[in-house]
Amino acid sequence: MNTLPSWKDKALFTPGPLTTSQTVKQAMLRDLGSRDIEFIAVIQAIRQQLVALCADPQAYTAVLMPGSGTSGIEAILSSVLPPDGKLLILINGAYGERIRKIAGIHHIAAATLVFPENTQPDAAALAAALEADAEITHVAVVHCETTTGILNPIEVYGAIAKKYARTYIVDAMSSFGAYPINLPSCGIDFLISSANKCVEGVPGFSFVVARTAALTAIRGFARTLSLDLLAQWEGLERDGQFRFTPPTHALLAFHQALHELEQEGGIVARGERYRQNYAITLTSMHMMGFRPYLDEDKRGYTITSFYYPEHPQFNFRVFYEQLSEKGYVIYPGKLSHADCFRIGHIGRLGAGDVRALMAAIADTLHEMGITNA
Amino acid sequence: MNTLPSWKDKALFTPGPLTTSQTVKQAMLRDLGSRDIEFIAVIQAIRQQLVALCADPQAYTAVLMPGSGTSGIEAILSSVLPPDGKLLILINGAYGERIRKIAGIHHIAAATLVFPENTQPDAAALAAALEADAEITHVAVVHCETTTGILNPIEVYGAIAKKYARTYIVDAMSSFGAYPINLPSCGIDFLISSANKCVEGVPGFSFVVARTAALTAIRGFARTLSLDLLAQWEGLERDGQFRFTPPTHALLAFHQALHELEQEGGIVARGERYRQNYAITLTSMHMMGFRPYLDEDKRGYTITSFYYPEHPQFNFRVFYEQLSEKGYVIYPGKLSHADCFRIGHIGRLGAGDVRALMAAIADTLHEMGITNA
Repeated sequence: MNTLPSWKDKALFTPGPLTTSQTVKQAMLRDLGSRDIEFIAVIQAIRQQLVALCADPQAYTAVLMPGSGTSGIEAILSSVLPPDGKLLILINGAYGERIRKIAGIHHIAAATLVFPENTQPDAAALAAALEADAEITHVAVVHCETTTGILNPIEVYGAIAKKYARTYIVDAMSSFGAYPINLPSCGIDFLISSANKCVEGVPGFSFVVARTAALTAIRGFARTLSLDLLAQWEGLERDGQFRFTPPTHALLAFHQALHELEQEGGIVARGERYRQNYAITLTSMHMMGFRPYLDEDKRGYTITSFYYPEHPQFNFRVFYEQLSEKGYVIYPGKLSHADCFRIGHIGRLGAGDVRALMAAIADTLHEMGITNA
Repeated sequence: MNTLPSWKDKALFTPGPLTTSQTVKQAMLRDLGSRDIEFIAVIQAIRQQLVALCADPQAYTAVLMPGSGTSGIEAILSSVLPPDGKLLILINGAYGERIRKIAGIHHIAAATLVFPENTQPDAAALAAALEADAEITHVAVVHCETTTGILNPIEVYGAIAKKYARTYIVDAMSSFGAYPINLPSCGIDFLISSANKCVEGVPGFSFVVARTAALTAIRGFARTLSLDLLAQWEGLERDGQFRFTPPTHALLAFHQALHELEQEGGIVARGERYRQNYAITLTSMHMMGFRPYLDEDKRGYTITSFYYPEHPQFNFRVFYEQLSEKGYVIYPGKLSHADCFRIGHIGRLGAGDVRALMAAIADTLHEMGITNA
C-alpha cells in the first residue's frame, strides 16, 4: 500500500480547505454509483442532517450544489432574484464585495451599504435603506467576513429584513458549524455554506438551507443551468439524485464529517473547541507582541487577522515559508488598507496543535532576529 | 483504523463516476492548503500533462474548472460565445440537446442539426449549414454520445469547421483518455472532459484544453463569475492557483490518475483495455440473446446500449437490482424512442471483471426465468 504519509501533512491554520480527520478522508476510499441506492441514501441523510442543525424540517429544506462556495453564492443570487428584483448588500470585506460583483455580472439591480473592514454593518442604516427604497426585494450579508474574521450580527439584520418583508440571504461560509444559527429566529430565507469549512469535510460542493416556501417561489428566475438552485432541489426531491454528476467522494466525506460533528457534541461543542483555539492563539500572539486587527468585541473565533510587526526584520514571505517548513500553514491577509496576515482556528485542530504553532512562530521570530514583534 | 471495506464495493459498469484504483483514492488521504506551494505544483503538473496528452504545449493550454462536467460545458459556452455569436450544434443524443439547452438559457443564438440517436451527424449537412449561414461563429459536437455510445467523427467535422474558419468546440466528456485525440489535427479550439471519466479520477472538476489564441480572444464575453473560463485561466497562469477554493482532494486523485494512465502505457493502451472489455461484453451479451442498439460501425467502446429483451419475464428494475445485489452496477437507458439499458466499459475494470458481470447477468436471467433474452 503506497498511501502517502498523511500524518506528516502540514497543519492548516487557514480559512479552508482545512485539516480534516483521517476518518473523514478514509470515507473517500470508495467508489459509489451516483444513481445507486446506497449513494442516494447518503445524499438524503446529509440533507436531513443539515436542516436539523439549523432549522425546522417542516418549513426548511437543503440543496447541495457542486463546485466552490463562490459558485454556491452565484447559484443563490442568479436563481433567487427575480428579473425586476433589487438586492441590498451589506459590505464590510472582500466577500461582501464578491456578492456585489456576482450581482453585477448577472445584471441584478443592487444597492450597497459599505462599511470599513473593522466595523460591523450598521443596523440603523439597513433599516433606513429599506424604509427609503421600496424597490429592494432582497438583503444579503456575510456572517463571518473571512477577510478580517469579523462576526456580523445576522439576527439583528434579519429582524429588520423581516420587519420590511424582504427576502434575507446569509453567506455563512465560515460560520456554519462553528456558531449555532437558527434560521427561523434569524429570519433567514437562504443560508449558504461550504463542505470544507466548519463541518470539517473536504471541498467539492456547497450547501444551501432554504425556507421551502421561499425556494419554491423562485421558479423561472434562474440565469444558468448548472447553478439553478430550484431545479437542483427539484431533482433531489424527485428521485434523491443530483441532476448532473455529483462529487461522490466529497459527499461520502461530508456524511462522515456530519457524524463526527455529532460525536463531538454538535455545533456548541465544536464552537467551544474553536473558541479555545482562538483564545490560546490570542494570548500567545499578544505575548509575542502581535496586535490583532479587530477590536475584541467584533472578533469571531474562526479566523483572526494580525498586523504585520513593525520590526524592520519582519518579512511576511520569509515568515510564512519558515512556518510552512516547520509544518504549519498560515494565511496571507486580504485587507484593502492594512498589512495583515491571518491565522485560522478551525478544522480538526485542538489546543495542542495551536500551542505547537505558537512555539513555531516564536522560533521563527527568533530565527528572523526579531526579539519582540 | 475504521476504513470502510472498499474492496467490497460494487463494480461500476456506468458512464461515471467510475471504479477507480485504490491508489487513486488513497491519494486523497491528505489535506493540502489550496494556496500552498506543494498544491500549486500539483495543479501545474496536471495542466502540463493534460496538454501533453492531446496537443502542442506551445499553442494549447489547460484550464481546470470545479464542478460537474455539465457546469464545465456551461463554462465554455457562456465564456466563449461573443454577444453577437451564433452556435451551430450537431445533435444526436441527450448531451447534444443539453448544449442546446445551455445556449438557450444564456440567450446564445443557436442553430441545430438534429440526427437520429443511432446516426452520426452528417458532415455534408454541416458544410451546407456553414456555407448557408455566415452568422454562425462556433460549431459544437459531442465526441462520444453517452446516450447511446455512438462515436462521432470529430476530425471530419473539424476539417469543415476550419475550412469555414469557425471556432470548434468538442465535448469529449466520455472519450478523453479512451481515444487518442489530437487537437491540432482535429481543428479543435476548445475540448472539454471531466475528471471522473477515462482518466479514471474521481468527480469534482472538469478540464478544458484550449488553443491559447482562441482562449485569449474571449475577453469580456463571460456571463458568470464562477464559470468564467478566461478569468480562471488567467488566475492559473498568474500564480498557479484557482480563483476560488478548488476540490483539493479530487485534484490529488487526478494527479495520481494521470500517473497511472502513463504507467498503463498511455491512452492507446488504456483504449485497448476498454476495447477488450467492450469485445467481451458484446460477445457474451450476444450469446445470451441481447441486441445492441447501434450498428457495429457506429459503436464506440466506452459504453454500449442494449435493447430490453422482448421476453415477457424481463423487468429492468428487477434485473438492475438483482445485478446490484450481486455487486455489479449497470446503467439505465437515456433514449427517447427505445427501451434500452447501458453497460459501460470504462474505469479500473478489466477482462476478469467483465466476465464476472457476464456470469452475473446469466445467473440473473436464469433467476428471472428467462432462458434466452
